[in-house]
Amino acid sequence: MSPSQTWWNGEPLSASLWSSRGLHYGDGVFRTMLIHDGQVVDRDAHIAKAVSDAAVLHLHAPDSLHDEITAAGRDVSNGVLKLLLIRAGQGRGYKPQTSDTDRLLIRYPMPELPAGNAQHGIAALRSPVTMATQALLAGIKHLNRLEQVLASRDWPDGVSEAILGDDRGQPVCGTRSNLFWVSRGVLHTPALDRCGVSGVQRGKLLAIAAQKGLDVRIGSEAWSALIAADEAFVCNSLIGIWPLRALDERQWPAPGPITADLMQALAHPTLLAS
Amino acid sequence: MSPSQTWWNGEPLSASLWSSRGLHYGDGVFRTMLIHDGQVVDRDAHIAKAVSDAAVLHLHAPDSLHDEITAAGRDVSNGVLKLLLIRAGQGRGYKPQTSDTDRLLIRYPMPELPAGNAQHGIAALRSPVTMATQALLAGIKHLNRLEQVLASRDWPDGVSEAILGDDRGQPVCGTRSNLFWVSRGVLHTPALDRCGVSGVQRGKLLAIAAQKGLDVRIGSEAWSALIAADEAFVCNSLIGIWPLRALDERQWPAPGPITADLMQALAHPTLLAS
Repeated sequence: MSPSQTWWNGEPLSASLWSSRGLHYGDGVFRTMLIHDGQVVDRDAHIAKAVSDAAVLHLHAPDSLHDEITAAGRDVSNGVLKLLLIRAGQGRGYKPQTSDTDRLLIRYPMPELPAGNAQHGIAALRSPVTMATQALLAGIKHLNRLEQVLASRDWPDGVSEAILGDDRGQPVCGTRSNLFWVSRGVLHTPALDRCGVSGVQRGKLLAIAAQKGLDVRIGSEAWSALIAADEAFVCNSLIGIWPLRALDERQWPAPGPITADLMQALAHPTLLAS
Repeated sequence: MSPSQTWWNGEPLSASLWSSRGLHYGDGVFRTMLIHDGQVVDRDAHIAKAVSDAAVLHLHAPDSLHDEITAAGRDVSNGVLKLLLIRAGQGRGYKPQTSDTDRLLIRYPMPELPAGNAQHGIAALRSPVTMATQALLAGIKHLNRLEQVLASRDWPDGVSEAILGDDRGQPVCGTRSNLFWVSRGVLHTPALDRCGVSGVQRGKLLAIAAQKGLDVRIGSEAWSALIAADEAFVCNSLIGIWPLRALDERQWPAPGPITADLMQALAHPTLLAS
């Protein structure tokens, strides 16, 4: 048998990633973390979520994650740290041969985040892309992200996020954020048991709301419930919270009072800096 | 700003694939082709499908594909050639910045295919994995393949393929093959407008059936229609056709007469060699 041979844009390629099951199948999970003042923010929560997401794909996260993530943030004033946990082994054949993972850790410079987004809110649109229902993968941050790519195309100027719905027309999440709204003092966020990604900031906010004694409803609700809300916002680990000041034609004062209260309680470094 | 930095299993990584949108999002398409006697079998059909699949993701395939694929097969007696067309650019941010593609071409040794699979058929199982409905991606061979990975786990000894159904319980395709069956002389194959991948051999077989004047039904049918069939088989570009001799408890004589006729007409190199 001749050995395998590889060309990358017509040139020989000798690196190992060409055969990665991450590239061929998206057989892995990832986390996107904020580095602030030499610390990886919410590091342990991110590691815990990476470990539990990996387990859904029957993947085992290595014990070295904690030390490697800590070291990658040390002496860095700010930045983004992305972790990919990818099933080890070659790309030929869908059948998983191992639960071992390769880990790819990438440190990026901090992107420009307009301070006004947190202070005055963002405009969002309802995405024409419907998220597929796949309970086996719902809630985890895996590497199959074509729906998010499709939903990130063709935003008009001034739009900062697109909100996706499921095949029942119910809102689920943003392309890169979780979604919350407030109706008559109750904090609402979609259940993520059919599609969508459950983020670390979402978990923190639910814990904060519980601590504050705020009424919370986690469930599936009609799009009209979101539109009828008194306040709405999105969150993720890089931005903290961005209030919604517009969703298509619907406009809100942003941030609303409960959103402002949650922003203060979350005390996210990006929000504190803005 | 500090430049980006990368670690692959804890070591510095300088190659270009670490930032590929193929790895981070699965933002690309692929083809798996057979090399036989220095020729890439069905080369032009594969290129045409790669180009049209890429267009669904608003990706542009380079003109050099034909020459590069031809050269990769030259002087090789047999093997597998896999092409990945991946959106160019970095992995940060879902928003696609270009329709240009990077191309990864990998030549693998020919895997061992038991000759008995074509001659006497294979045993398959009904997968417990349900394929999600996503009309925007249905029929194309993109790099988001976690459902196939999940459906390829835990096959009992002797099972060679798993048949997946959609969320209405209707059969769609195998993990790495298209599905056909014959009922009362009519050739049936599932429509692939909600999920599933449309393969080059499927297209060839439909053309052959039309040429032969065979009645064909492309549509959505209940699982019971497959079970009640007189013959069934799967196909792909590496194997040609494998008759089904069993699907869970259901057994068929394999190959059935129309399947045998189609195998002969397809004249696939793997079938001729077996």
